[in-house]
Amino acid sequence: MTDYPKTVEIHEEGPREGFQIEPGPIQTAEKIRLIEALAETGLHHIQVCSFVNTRLVPGWADAEATVEGFTARPGVHYTGLWFNSNGLERALAFRDKLTVTGSIHVTASEAFTRKNLNRSHAENLAAMRKQTALHLAHNVPVNRVGVMAAFGCNYQGDISPAQVVSTVADGMAIAAEHNTKIDVISLADTMGWAAPHRIERVIGEVRARWPDQTIALHLHDTRGLAVANAAAALRMGVAQFDSTVGGLGGCPFAGQKGAAGNICTEELALLCAEMGIETGIDLDRLIEVGRMAEAIVAHVLPSELIHAGSLDAFRRQAA
Amino acid sequence: MTDYPKTVEIHEEGPREGFQIEPGPIQTAEKIRLIEALAETGLHHIQVCSFVNTRLVPGWADAEATVEGFTARPGVHYTGLWFNSNGLERALAFRDKLTVTGSIHVTASEAFTRKNLNRSHAENLAAMRKQTALHLAHNVPVNRVGVMAAFGCNYQGDISPAQVVSTVADGMAIAAEHNTKIDVISLADTMGWAAPHRIERVIGEVRARWPDQTIALHLHDTRGLAVANAAAALRMGVAQFDSTVGGLGGCPFAGQKGAAGNICTEELALLCAEMGIETGIDLDRLIEVGRMAEAIVAHVLPSELIHAGSLDAFRRQAA
Repeated sequence: MTDYPKTVEIHEEGPREGFQIEPGPIQTAEKIRLIEALAETGLHHIQVCSFVNTRLVPGWADAEATVEGFTARPGVHYTGLWFNSNGLERALAFRDKLTVTGSIHVTASEAFTRKNLNRSHAENLAAMRKQTALHLAHNVPVNRVGVMAAFGCNYQGDISPAQVVSTVADGMAIAAEHNTKIDVISLADTMGWAAPHRIERVIGEVRARWPDQTIALHLHDTRGLAVANAAAALRMGVAQFDSTVGGLGGCPFAGQKGAAGNICTEELALLCAEMGIETGIDLDRLIEVGRMAEAIVAHVLPSELIHAGSLDAFRRQAA
Repeated sequence: MTDYPKTVEIHEEGPREGFQIEPGPIQTAEKIRLIEALAETGLHHIQVCSFVNTRLVPGWADAEATVEGFTARPGVHYTGLWFNSNGLERALAFRDKLTVTGSIHVTASEAFTRKNLNRSHAENLAAMRKQTALHLAHNVPVNRVGVMAAFGCNYQGDISPAQVVSTVADGMAIAAEHNTKIDVISLADTMGWAAPHRIERVIGEVRARWPDQTIALHLHDTRGLAVANAAAALRMGVAQFDSTVGGLGGCPFAGQKGAAGNICTEELALLCAEMGIETGIDLDRLIEVGRMAEAIVAHVLPSELIHAGSLDAFRRQAA
């Protein structure tokens, strides 16, 4: 049985994910140019920066300058990412320009929690309790539980669906303690372990337990299966995805130097378009922005589509 | 309803597809090294060369030297590709070493037939009649109909499933005229137009008309959707795929300079492995051969998996 959605909401994370991992410094003006171009493609959600420790992520030392610099387009939600109170405070300084909402970040792999955050899962839950309280104290809604390593882990191996459910439950319990309503459960394939069957099983079990929450997917294309995983999720009615233009990014902390980044926004948008699913995106325009992203980082990006060109361009030529 | 196959037969075309498009001359010894390494991975079908016009495809001027040079591994079928009587004769000189069988090559796009072969569809059918007779006269079985541009065409746009069925029927009619039994109908997404729904419709219609033939797929990853298309085909029970190690290759005649090549063998094998489908391939070994291919062509290949490493390697570390 298939349950394809009619529309899909794509959350563009290229600026944030991409520029945190690029080796060379990217000019602030170039980041701004990309953000503004992305907003012209029909994307309604763009994550523009990371308010993280600038010693650990020097690529985002100019987070403030970037947010100050771009001209916001009405109807587009611009977001940032942060993991602690300092990051939250930096985001709150831009409350007029950014959509500031909170997430409860949990990880289905104890080993990855230690590697990535230098904490145990229990310590991370304690930190998330504190962070949730802090967000709510600032009238920042906390409406999302995000699960990293939800499909497998380079340090821990396979992650069972039951383990994912238990991890989501830990996040939901924190929300319940603080009386805040979770709208979205976001499952991240942080290290590229998912395959279609696993997508079906994990989503099936999470949805069975929390039928009222929207499930969102954050897929990495580490081993080339991201688009097959997205297709499997679409079949199950998943209608919210993170992605990055051109396939910008990757996970600098996942112990895989050559690892590819997120699923490409334009390939996800093409998949949806060819399946008759609306995304609101002008694909030809997005492909141009993918090429711009490639020029900005000055190396070939993983997206095949930005190199090959859209089907619609060929359809117009052929007509 | 799903109808996953228990086993999948992968036909490796990396040497033939890959080396025909590489800009620099590849040493014959390197081609041989790759072919021999591929045969050690568990692959049972390897297309090792093209017996084509060496002026048009200078990369295969050493087809004979390559076939002479490699040591055949028992149980592995080595094949070549040819499009005319001269090519057939060159292949027949290696009948002891190569599996020499014939295909009826047809194209679902009249415009692509003209661009690729400088013939009309009707002229191509006439050529195929002649070629089929020639093969049979040499006691070469003709057991395959191959359809290029079966999912769309850069020159003609969308190709309807009815058009594909009509094109297959033209090929089947030639087989019937010559009283030769077709075992396999191979559908090629030559220019990367397929998406999962289209895969389902085309395969559904071809299978409904020819339920007794095996359907094989030749997928190009031109716009990044090849692995999603393979997953859709697997769901329908398709159990034979062409692919190239590392994603070697591309179509030099399809008017897209930056276009990616075939679906990567190792990503297809990973997809199958993670879905519980047997391919007989040692994936870790194949990944090593993908890295060898990358070293031979001396540029980055599209395969993400050869850069990231197999899941099993991480599973062993984590255990």
